[in-house]
Amino acid sequence: MTPPSPLAFVPYISVENMMRLVHSVGIETMLRELADAIERDFVRWNLFDKTPRFGIDSENGVIELMPTSDGELYGFKYVNGHPTNTRQGLQTVTAFGLLAKVASGYPVLLSEMTMLTALRTAATSAMAARHLAPKDAKVMALIGNGAQSEFQALAFKAVCGIEEVRLYDIDAAATAKCARNLAASGLRGTACRSSQEAMEGAKIVTTCTADKQYATILTDNMVGDGIHINAIGGDCPGKTELHRDILLRSEIFVEYPPQTRIEGEIQQLPSDHPVTELWQVISGEAKGRTSAAQITLFDGVGFAIEDFAALKYVHEKALATGLYDQLDMIADPDDPRDLFGMLTRAREAA
Amino acid sequence: MTPPSPLAFVPYISVENMMRLVHSVGIETMLRELADAIERDFVRWNLFDKTPRFGIDSENGVIELMPTSDGELYGFKYVNGHPTNTRQGLQTVTAFGLLAKVASGYPVLLSEMTMLTALRTAATSAMAARHLAPKDAKVMALIGNGAQSEFQALAFKAVCGIEEVRLYDIDAAATAKCARNLAASGLRGTACRSSQEAMEGAKIVTTCTADKQYATILTDNMVGDGIHINAIGGDCPGKTELHRDILLRSEIFVEYPPQTRIEGEIQQLPSDHPVTELWQVISGEAKGRTSAAQITLFDGVGFAIEDFAALKYVHEKALATGLYDQLDMIADPDDPRDLFGMLTRAREAA
Repeated sequence: MTPPSPLAFVPYISVENMMRLVHSVGIETMLRELADAIERDFVRWNLFDKTPRFGIDSENGVIELMPTSDGELYGFKYVNGHPTNTRQGLQTVTAFGLLAKVASGYPVLLSEMTMLTALRTAATSAMAARHLAPKDAKVMALIGNGAQSEFQALAFKAVCGIEEVRLYDIDAAATAKCARNLAASGLRGTACRSSQEAMEGAKIVTTCTADKQYATILTDNMVGDGIHINAIGGDCPGKTELHRDILLRSEIFVEYPPQTRIEGEIQQLPSDHPVTELWQVISGEAKGRTSAAQITLFDGVGFAIEDFAALKYVHEKALATGLYDQLDMIADPDDPRDLFGMLTRAREAA
Repeated sequence: MTPPSPLAFVPYISVENMMRLVHSVGIETMLRELADAIERDFVRWNLFDKTPRFGIDSENGVIELMPTSDGELYGFKYVNGHPTNTRQGLQTVTAFGLLAKVASGYPVLLSEMTMLTALRTAATSAMAARHLAPKDAKVMALIGNGAQSEFQALAFKAVCGIEEVRLYDIDAAATAKCARNLAASGLRGTACRSSQEAMEGAKIVTTCTADKQYATILTDNMVGDGIHINAIGGDCPGKTELHRDILLRSEIFVEYPPQTRIEGEIQQLPSDHPVTELWQVISGEAKGRTSAAQITLFDGVGFAIEDFAALKYVHEKALATGLYDQLDMIADPDDPRDLFGMLTRAREAA
């Protein structure tokens, strides 16, 4: 066959190249740069075409598509969430994503996003905490020590200066795994036997549990004044981590209210319960933390603009480092009206 | 680096492999088999999770995601529609798609779909005509001789027994290209100088023009009794091909009314104008053509279930022929909770 034209190719970042990219940049640098990239796109919030993600639910989980666009680029992510997958040795979450030019609809990047979602979720949490958490926070409780936990720990170290993470998971093996993975990071990782113990001395608490069945990770009596809560595990209908009473004592910050009211912790509250949009805090239109005693809560569910920012970021890095493959994904006939002729000539050339 | 595990790989059909697949099956056989596969999924209509596609519109075009699921498999297509793309030497439509297991959310196929969309669109049209057109139709008018035209011609030959296609396009070069491409097909291709001339003796007329500006391809006086109209070019808001009076004289058949009322020819009609769903005709729940004099109109806009059926079809064919690549797209750590450890070990192994 004649080789495809240059227009036929879409740069593709495989899992292997994504890992190489992370190591070539350095994971903490990458988390910091991702936090900055996401923050810049939160400032441009009003430019984006926004929609709640649309999912197809099944007994075991959900498959979702999360599109957005800033008018120049279009991005979307495919992502699943299947809490019981780990029992079969599978990931709870797998993802991939795409960037395309709005003007032509032509894709410019296809990328794995399982790894990238872990990175952008952690970067978003740390970016939110930079605006909401007590400035002097050095200790973070990290409840739920699964696939997302180390990324959260490192992002809070890189972006917010956290020095100690206090680890708790109902499965002690998960805690041991997390502590082991963080051993060389420069963070002090302290394994704890209860959520209560993990909360000791912490000014930030991150909850990132995966299983639908653990409905109340934090109860009201565990949360003292002045804490910043980074709640990212409650991210679909029927799945929450915090007792409702905590929500009622907290100043709540969210990404995109129409989505968070369905998926986030605030699904427990009336649909008119006041929340503040994080982008408004970042762009100075709304207040973040207003007192030392205040409990701030980032009810993070993950929003398409974060994926968009992350895809744009890795697109630039991949092109700069050559850490990508070329995928023959776009049929590109000599004459665009002659798709059939391209097909016929492919047979003749074979 | 250590090689990725088998779970990391997703079979991928490139444009080149899609073309090989078409030739290995034979294009007419493939169109016939696709028509049958789509018909089988139309019979299972009620099993599917259905939603109108969600698009992001811009000045030049639209980018859309079209998901669906039958409870076992989930499929979606990314597709753009940019009528002005051809002026820059680009395709009006490019597409790719994915199949995943509903139970785990894990992708099982990624495929180019620019070529496959052309095939499934033609197969769907011919499948509809098999139920709606006069049985003795041997001549089809084909108005609009762009990228979709030859696929339509061959599908109507393979599925409905059409022997002559009468070609017209406002651009004579497009007609010449179409006639040339069909020269060896066994179809008689007759170039015509007007739509009127193309309609002579035709019992089926297919309109597949691409540009938004040609708003009335057929006027009322051109359409005689007993004709089947296969209108597939009017497929987005603001883009129609038929004069409203034709619609009022026709029995109208559609794929999925909530989508067609927005995108199809019937956007010109009140939202309660009676239409029949094609799947109901196929499964015997509604009548198709009831008299020789009736004008039947398939107002085709393309629906997710057609892409789902086409993806399932090429998935089987690709696995059977080996005409696919393996894409390292799913991060698959030894321990699914240890995504971070996978990342760390990738550096150590590098």
